[in-house]
Amino acid sequence: MLALRSTTLPRTFGVTRQHESTACAAVLRSRGQEIAPRRTNAGRFTSRTQTRFLTRGIESSKGDRERVVVLGSGWAGYTLARDLDPKKYQVVVVSPRSYFVFTPLLASTSTGTLEFRTALEPVRSRRTKVEFFQGWADSVDFATKTLKVEEAVENPWQAMALTADGREDQNATQLEQEKGVKAKKGKVFEMNYDKLVVAVGCYSQTFGTPGVKEHAYFLKDVGDARKIRNRMLSCFETASLPTTSEEMKKQLLNFAVVGGGPTGIEFSAELHDLISEDMAKLYPELMKYYKITVYDVADRVLSMFDDKLAKYAIERFTREGIDVKTSHHVKSLRRGSPKKLEEDGGGQVVKDESSCYTLDLQEEGEVGVGMVVWSTGLMMNPFISKSLSRPYDIPVDSTVVETPSDEKSWNISRHPRSGGIMTNDRLRVIMQPSTQAKEGDKVSGRAIIKDVYAIGDCAIMENSAYPATAQVANQKARWLAKQLNRDTIDDNPFTYKDLGVMAYVGNWNAIMQSSGGDVSGRVAWLIWRGAYLAKSVSWRNRILIPTYWFVNWLFGRDISRF
Amino acid sequence: MLALRSTTLPRTFGVTRQHESTACAAVLRSRGQEIAPRRTNAGRFTSRTQTRFLTRGIESSKGDRERVVVLGSGWAGYTLARDLDPKKYQVVVVSPRSYFVFTPLLASTSTGTLEFRTALEPVRSRRTKVEFFQGWADSVDFATKTLKVEEAVENPWQAMALTADGREDQNATQLEQEKGVKAKKGKVFEMNYDKLVVAVGCYSQTFGTPGVKEHAYFLKDVGDARKIRNRMLSCFETASLPTTSEEMKKQLLNFAVVGGGPTGIEFSAELHDLISEDMAKLYPELMKYYKITVYDVADRVLSMFDDKLAKYAIERFTREGIDVKTSHHVKSLRRGSPKKLEEDGGGQVVKDESSCYTLDLQEEGEVGVGMVVWSTGLMMNPFISKSLSRPYDIPVDSTVVETPSDEKSWNISRHPRSGGIMTNDRLRVIMQPSTQAKEGDKVSGRAIIKDVYAIGDCAIMENSAYPATAQVANQKARWLAKQLNRDTIDDNPFTYKDLGVMAYVGNWNAIMQSSGGDVSGRVAWLIWRGAYLAKSVSWRNRILIPTYWFVNWLFGRDISRF
Repeated sequence: MLALRSTTLPRTFGVTRQHESTACAAVLRSRGQEIAPRRTNAGRFTSRTQTRFLTRGIESSKGDRERVVVLGSGWAGYTLARDLDPKKYQVVVVSPRSYFVFTPLLASTSTGTLEFRTALEPVRSRRTKVEFFQGWADSVDFATKTLKVEEAVENPWQAMALTADGREDQNATQLEQEKGVKAKKGKVFEMNYDKLVVAVGCYSQTFGTPGVKEHAYFLKDVGDARKIRNRMLSCFETASLPTTSEEMKKQLLNFAVVGGGPTGIEFSAELHDLISEDMAKLYPELMKYYKITVYDVADRVLSMFDDKLAKYAIERFTREGIDVKTSHHVKSLRRGSPKKLEEDGGGQVVKDESSCYTLDLQEEGEVGVGMVVWSTGLMMNPFISKSLSRPYDIPVDSTVVETPSDEKSWNISRHPRSGGIMTNDRLRVIMQPSTQAKEGDKVSGRAIIKDVYAIGDCAIMENSAYPATAQVANQKARWLAKQLNRDTIDDNPFTYKDLGVMAYVGNWNAIMQSSGGDVSGRVAWLIWRGAYLAKSVSWRNRILIPTYWFVNWLFGRDISRF
Repeated sequence: MLALRSTTLPRTFGVTRQHESTACAAVLRSRGQEIAPRRTNAGRFTSRTQTRFLTRGIESSKGDRERVVVLGSGWAGYTLARDLDPKKYQVVVVSPRSYFVFTPLLASTSTGTLEFRTALEPVRSRRTKVEFFQGWADSVDFATKTLKVEEAVENPWQAMALTADGREDQNATQLEQEKGVKAKKGKVFEMNYDKLVVAVGCYSQTFGTPGVKEHAYFLKDVGDARKIRNRMLSCFETASLPTTSEEMKKQLLNFAVVGGGPTGIEFSAELHDLISEDMAKLYPELMKYYKITVYDVADRVLSMFDDKLAKYAIERFTREGIDVKTSHHVKSLRRGSPKKLEEDGGGQVVKDESSCYTLDLQEEGEVGVGMVVWSTGLMMNPFISKSLSRPYDIPVDSTVVETPSDEKSWNISRHPRSGGIMTNDRLRVIMQPSTQAKEGDKVSGRAIIKDVYAIGDCAIMENSAYPATAQVANQKARWLAKQLNRDTIDDNPFTYKDLGVMAYVGNWNAIMQSSGGDVSGRVAWLIWRGAYLAKSVSWRNRILIPTYWFVNWLFGRDISRF
């Protein structure tokens, strides 16, 4: 642990307004598009007076409280915002989505075991005093403690996993092609903060695999879950048409899951449950065609579990007919049937190419599939990797320099592999002289930005190896809220307490690994359901979730598609 | 009542295959687009053997039952399909949507009082033996008792009100612009029927008012309800942004409802409930801006109710601040702000034009609105007005000629005003010689197509004045199913029993008019809720609906948007 040295730099290191706006115009925006010149410096935000005018709603209700601006409404941001004391802080959440997603239940909603909204909690609530602006953080000026926000109420990406893989500039064009929506720029407004918490999370990682970004189904947000549910049901409905050939039925009902982590495994299990419990009764003639396969590049799945539990899961899967293929590599994904079929087929065999997809595997070649669910890997949010990665002059009042350096240009310190923001053990953001930041680990200058914290998947605490999980995000948020509420942040560092891992493996069985020992089977399943119910945020969902479990067990899942 | 004369025409009147396919190629499709030449005659359905091959799934399970093909899954089609005896009939539903919508609850779902799926019942069900194909009926050959179906599983119009107003040919282009979806043709397959029931319903009528089709929000299907819910919530979220001017807040929160029938009134009431009960707590600072106005061209609203009850409803609305403007005419609807504001405004005043709409009224001029909900009028389904309106040679075996005529070309008899299919009092479809059909009422030739029935909004029983309501559709379907199950259709004609009308008018009050007398207020509301709960089709929804009523009363409606 490093001791803090509260050396404040002399005034000459202060950032200049001019430098700030030039730098800001040069960096890329959080969604990975260049800021159009018309919007950044000129016109709209000419005077600071006007900016204050724009946010006068929250100015007037602030009173003598400090303003904590929280960027993001995921496990880290939402938890922190709820836990902060509204008497002491005015909490303002800025997020492109208006709700928090209880991610462990997403797989259940994507198969209809639960209704979508049971996994959601709106950020605005009668019971909290949290202020909310739906927007993307654009850039932050640490010196003046202001940030620019681009509004995103009618953002067409809403509720969908965000992906980017080096072809980010294609986003806008693609969206136009896919959704026919003109990717408009939202208006930008400025806001002051007293404390800033960066909890913007990560994007989905596609490793640049061609076609994945365009054609795979993700499972990160509720819109993704809805897309999967509709797609899966429409694969069955299309397969039941008299115009669909035998070959095409097999392809449509061949479901591939890429990624053998808990999300991929739980989704496969839920999908299998849905098919064997409900679709079997509704489409009995199609049961001979369906297939679920889990692919992973690693040589094992569920790597966070003991060998014994992972083996138990795989055995269950094998018994249910779900294939698990490790050490498999996806080369590409595209619309249409595999080539050999296209060549064989005449009018009847190959359907219109939009009806199915072709997954190209290094080990197996082309496979025709109805849907590929991609649940592997995270990549850094461009807000971190682009917008916050520009050099800053170390500002006077807002920085505590622990190890001085002659360098005038400083960068936020980022994790060499993941690119996450490095924080100290109080979750405060660390800065390094720019030259060092580029070279990596050789630390000779080091500063802490006062009142700027980073938590969740976009942040990494130095000298720790905590995984990028909801549990870590949640614990960091709760710890930070508690310290800020009590002004005790300098007393003790954050430590993570591993509460164990669980995964549903299908047919009313789960696996659980914790300090209390390993559990598998029906008992683990009961604990799994109980834990999710207990962890549900609102009483509303604590009532609705068991109601849906009961109703769907009794009558079957709903298969209406809209 | 007309007595049936079972005169069967001689064989020479039989339709020829060649005539049939030429006529079919010439008529327009049910969605109002011309059949592409590539698909109609050539290629796909060259032999009857192949056709039988295509539907062999239902052929093999048919056994010795008669096949009843039901076109449509609304109040008429869905009810009939459920009520027919599966031991006696193989029931095959053909519909572009995979579910039935319990329409009286749509307004509740559009405001979040209920969840969308509580108003739905999937056509495929564990508990019924109904076969289902998701598709549009394309054309019917009464002589050979076959119909052509265009598959519609991935139909992008799914779950949305269908509109057409003389500019139908623009549909495909528009969809491409609005949703970025290529309006593909589905594949076509052929099916035989023993009995055919046409229950395809109506489209939404826009009376050719410019911009309504493109920019209004309808309330006919569950996708419409979802669109309204998202739009209304996003109007509030946008209005709460610091970048939104005072003038724009007023426009965004100005909600217009066109049509003072039960749907328009109930939606206005539910919207007002949502705003006053929930949004008031979440966006207190916006309450001064919102406004709801109901417009109707007629000089009164709720015309199916007594004056006294209608007055009660209007008084309640006035007290709640909802304006009811009768004798008002909509000239057009467009994106953007009213002209006077656009001219005034500089950078800040007028937002990007997609943010609001301008409603142009003959009586008031341009009004800026956040959303226009259009719930007035029905228009004939193009399947009726186009595909079925072609001349047929009276076929031999499938027609009962009641009043003979020398004419060889016959048409389905259609209602002169609405264009609906005329049926006799056994709900069988009537044909007239083509010359007469054009001239209207002078009946000298008349035939009945054996085994073809028409029910629901697309059908009108001769010598009756039953309204185009769910109640009539439901009663016709139940009656028809009963007669077909018992083979008693020739015994007695269908008669409609008016069970009364109800409407929710907001703040836990309703109005009810029936033979038992008029009721209004809280008691009527209790009956209203009780009746809808009792009429709900499935036990699943009988559990979920009161759960949502309770949960939303206790915790407020969910405002998550996705």
